[in-house]
Amino acid sequence: MVTLNNISIILVKPQMGENIGAAARIMHNFGLSELRLVSPRDGWPNEKATSMASGAGEIITAAKIFDTFEEATADLTMLYATTARERDMNKPAVTPREMSNELDATMKIGIVFGPERSGLENFEVTHCNKILYIPVNPEYKSLNIAQAVAVICYEISQSPAFKIAERPDAQLEKATKADYNSLYDYLENALDESHFFQVPEKKPKMMDNIRNIFARLDLSDQEMRTLRGVLKAIKG
Amino acid sequence: MVTLNNISIILVKPQMGENIGAAARIMHNFGLSELRLVSPRDGWPNEKATSMASGAGEIITAAKIFDTFEEATADLTMLYATTARERDMNKPAVTPREMSNELDATMKIGIVFGPERSGLENFEVTHCNKILYIPVNPEYKSLNIAQAVAVICYEISQSPAFKIAERPDAQLEKATKADYNSLYDYLENALDESHFFQVPEKKPKMMDNIRNIFARLDLSDQEMRTLRGVLKAIKG
Repeated sequence: MVTLNNISIILVKPQMGENIGAAARIMHNFGLSELRLVSPRDGWPNEKATSMASGAGEIITAAKIFDTFEEATADLTMLYATTARERDMNKPAVTPREMSNELDATMKIGIVFGPERSGLENFEVTHCNKILYIPVNPEYKSLNIAQAVAVICYEISQSPAFKIAERPDAQLEKATKADYNSLYDYLENALDESHFFQVPEKKPKMMDNIRNIFARLDLSDQEMRTLRGVLKAIKG
Repeated sequence: MVTLNNISIILVKPQMGENIGAAARIMHNFGLSELRLVSPRDGWPNEKATSMASGAGEIITAAKIFDTFEEATADLTMLYATTARERDMNKPAVTPREMSNELDATMKIGIVFGPERSGLENFEVTHCNKILYIPVNPEYKSLNIAQAVAVICYEISQSPAFKIAERPDAQLEKATKADYNSLYDYLENALDESHFFQVPEKKPKMMDNIRNIFARLDLSDQEMRTLRGVLKAIKG
């Protein structure tokens, strides 16, 4: 029987403890358990989070805390960036329903939520495979984060992936986000060496564009090795 | 164009103003506007409700207050009683998805939520046409009311009867297959030059793998240029 353990809810720089607690509570309602926090504003542990989590205290206790987004996602293979704002990025956007329908119980999945006030930064979005777009009233798009988490956890619980027996098909080992990060590092170094970034101020934006290209590849382990080999060979 | 005006969210004896406000906020997110309250515990108006409603203040201002459940529902034609507890009643039970699929834009619909602590009483449930059952973790059924309202409003917004939001598909110029072919040619030449294909018989299979990686990128025109630039720079 497939469980929901391979789906993490990742809150990036969450501001209010109450929202962290409410996220944990709804996760428990819908059978999820893995909560990851990237540098929560008010430190950790957080009493308000514990109190708001109600019966889901175990998820709060077991929450994993990270300093950076890259560390928080290093072992995952598929990242969804939840966002209500339009992004000027060529990255596939799916609705919660579509995400739910495409979930694959063999992937290690992270659903990423940004800080309450501002949402995710482009930096984090570029690291993600897909944009997860909750279709809301165009006249009022500002979703409470705990309610956004509610909608997503609900849709995950409805996924066909977690209702049917695991398929015995051969499963491809997927590249992890750590592999991608090391690929980005390699590219950045190689491009620095070859003076690709002629205007230093434009480098972050260029690296965003480059990550955006590779982040949506959903590479197998083998393909990641091929890609690294190709780049190395070209560099000579 | 059908609107969501003929669906009311009805909170029976809500206890916390914060939850009323959060319910209003998510209603507005998903395009609903009619909020009805049956004898809210802390009276009305309620400052905490207004503050928590954030940009949905109009829904709070326009909320209709009733003394009894019967008055609050008198003009409606279809009532759903949300409940997590099992009820010993011979009454059809539907999931949020089923409710969403059966909504009829010509009905006057009420979705009824009970007080935070105890949920709906049998009295109110008996008044309803159907039980609306949110399938949750059997080990933790206690849903926060604002999150339960979130799930229901989300499902309503997904109903084939009311399509409120269109997706914001970015209209990007995409790279053509000719661009990809020229990319593959470039890679093949570069890899030949650097003696990447040590075993000549394996070259076609390797090129297959490489095409496989890049073919699924769905690159924009701009990204294709970036990628070409990156490869050129690395090659030096």
